[in-house]
Amino acid sequence: MRGEKASVAWTADDARFMSLALSLADEAKGTTFPNPAVGAVIVKDGKVVGKGATSRCGGPHAERNALTEAGDRARGAALYVTLEPCCHFGKTAPCTDAIIRAGLRSVVASAKDPNPLVNGKGLRSLGKAGIAVRTGLFEREATRLNEDFFFWITRRRPWVSVKLAMTLDGKIADLYGDSKWITSVDSRAFVHDLRRKHAAVCIGRKTLEKDNPRLTVRHGKTGNPARIVFSGKASAPPNSYFVRDAGETSRSILVVHGGRGRSRRTLASGVEVWRTGREESLREFLHAAYEEGIPSVLVEGGGMLASAFLEGGLANRLYVFYANKILGGGAAGFAFARPLSLLECVKIDQMEVVRFANDIMITGIPVRR
Amino acid sequence: MRGEKASVAWTADDARFMSLALSLADEAKGTTFPNPAVGAVIVKDGKVVGKGATSRCGGPHAERNALTEAGDRARGAALYVTLEPCCHFGKTAPCTDAIIRAGLRSVVASAKDPNPLVNGKGLRSLGKAGIAVRTGLFEREATRLNEDFFFWITRRRPWVSVKLAMTLDGKIADLYGDSKWITSVDSRAFVHDLRRKHAAVCIGRKTLEKDNPRLTVRHGKTGNPARIVFSGKASAPPNSYFVRDAGETSRSILVVHGGRGRSRRTLASGVEVWRTGREESLREFLHAAYEEGIPSVLVEGGGMLASAFLEGGLANRLYVFYANKILGGGAAGFAFARPLSLLECVKIDQMEVVRFANDIMITGIPVRR
Repeated sequence: MRGEKASVAWTADDARFMSLALSLADEAKGTTFPNPAVGAVIVKDGKVVGKGATSRCGGPHAERNALTEAGDRARGAALYVTLEPCCHFGKTAPCTDAIIRAGLRSVVASAKDPNPLVNGKGLRSLGKAGIAVRTGLFEREATRLNEDFFFWITRRRPWVSVKLAMTLDGKIADLYGDSKWITSVDSRAFVHDLRRKHAAVCIGRKTLEKDNPRLTVRHGKTGNPARIVFSGKASAPPNSYFVRDAGETSRSILVVHGGRGRSRRTLASGVEVWRTGREESLREFLHAAYEEGIPSVLVEGGGMLASAFLEGGLANRLYVFYANKILGGGAAGFAFARPLSLLECVKIDQMEVVRFANDIMITGIPVRR
Repeated sequence: MRGEKASVAWTADDARFMSLALSLADEAKGTTFPNPAVGAVIVKDGKVVGKGATSRCGGPHAERNALTEAGDRARGAALYVTLEPCCHFGKTAPCTDAIIRAGLRSVVASAKDPNPLVNGKGLRSLGKAGIAVRTGLFEREATRLNEDFFFWITRRRPWVSVKLAMTLDGKIADLYGDSKWITSVDSRAFVHDLRRKHAAVCIGRKTLEKDNPRLTVRHGKTGNPARIVFSGKASAPPNSYFVRDAGETSRSILVVHGGRGRSRRTLASGVEVWRTGREESLREFLHAAYEEGIPSVLVEGGGMLASAFLEGGLANRLYVFYANKILGGGAAGFAFARPLSLLECVKIDQMEVVRFANDIMITGIPVRR
């Protein structure tokens, strides 16, 4: 059909190898900053001869690690990689050079790298070197995996995920204030995985005082996200995990809104205090977080903080867990300072539904008209 | 393995023919009272030679209709039927006799008939006549299809389904009272199908006055469910569809709670007025509906009425549609007179999730501890 791009026919093997690459990338997620999380698999004669993921903190890229594992077997082999290989010098030399030098025969890349320094150039240089290049396999999954990173690079502020767990009637606590445990163990395991994939976890002051949460990653081999508490005062309960473990298992940052000045300093306890002023406090926080090298934050509640990000149009992805429960009253999860009309309400684009035991989770991109 | 029942191995053909029988039953649903909705398919040499569903209002059963269509071809054929064939005289002679007389070779039944007059006896009498009998294929779906009927027979009160459409934050209207249209066209088509499958549709007085709904079944070839309005007064707006079409396209019943007396009478307009008294008004309504031969009702809102049935432990199945929208405030869908604690809340058993375009629907069995 004239004008139509021929669609690539992917084989079951293609899908299998790229799935493996995606799971390598997923495992590395949360540790690769300032690089995106990428996975790479090298296949020769139908067998995996090299696997790699992005190293921690600016170390070798996924392709390099896979090539190292493959050694000489890379010659004539195929590379499956979740993101277009880079073609520019950063902390490491271009991956495209290494791929060409290793004598790979073909490359399948899930997604192009939207970084303006790459953005198709990497694939073109491979093609010019005679390597067969195909793209688009699991593109959506691969792009999704680094959506926070691409946002951070292009928009120069952290990606904000908002997570709430509520009943089917939208309540995050019953009328006695009880919120433990609304959702099931399976959902909570997913939340620990979400934390691992974010650079920081945010809660409100009330949640700190009421729950004294650890905000750690269960079975976390790779360190914990920074803990951020939004507060009206510049001090925190000294016996809280937030203060006691400050700077030890992770950064503890107290974001103080109100007042006039903006400043950042570290207390003797190790707790960092960021003053954001009274106006546009959340935007000011995101600006500070960008400057401090925090590419993504997970807002875990309470409802006030989650609602503030959502109402301010500052939430990039929403995760709402619904337990199979109805209270008929209690604390609302989403409560805006100015509730919206049906015509101008927040819509959730690209909504997906996932089942966890007795809970369901919806996730998607909140859009304010 | 000792003590374990050998599991029947169903073939793809078995599944195909029983699916057809289920869809015949589903199509007949809502018109078969006082019989359950059943579908039957007769298969000879791998070909369908007879199809049938329960006739309207006490006419021949599904098996009879399928046998009539099959004629002589039924000899040596297999019957797929969604419910155990009856073995007792009702308005019609036992289906088991007809099956035996027609010379069928085998019978596959999805579910046993829980009616104490049948309850396995039908299948046993077929077995005694030398017919190969198997059960359990799509048992869950078949039982689900007549869950209202089985409840009505054993519990002597109508099955109550409660349906609400809300935003992801549990609101059924925005702060201006606007509720049109929270959910998508696809969801609304499903609701029309739900109405068709219920004997009556219930709304509250406020919904009548605000929306003046028709409460009809779109493309309904088979008549409309009775319309029931819960009201504090014994009169209804004369220009409403509820009054204007009373007794014409369907019954219009005004359930008046409050006052002391209990009574049922019909106004000149054709509207029936049921007075239920002040105490236990909903239970009294269900009692009256049972006496009036209404086996199932769909409570469509508003939130007050839906909540009252749920809080009273009188809802048998819940359908909640969630649109991909967040208002951050507005009218709550579920608001109980006495909100529950997390420990004693309503739980939704057997929860299922269905996707409709931008909406999701959850359905399940509400259970109050």
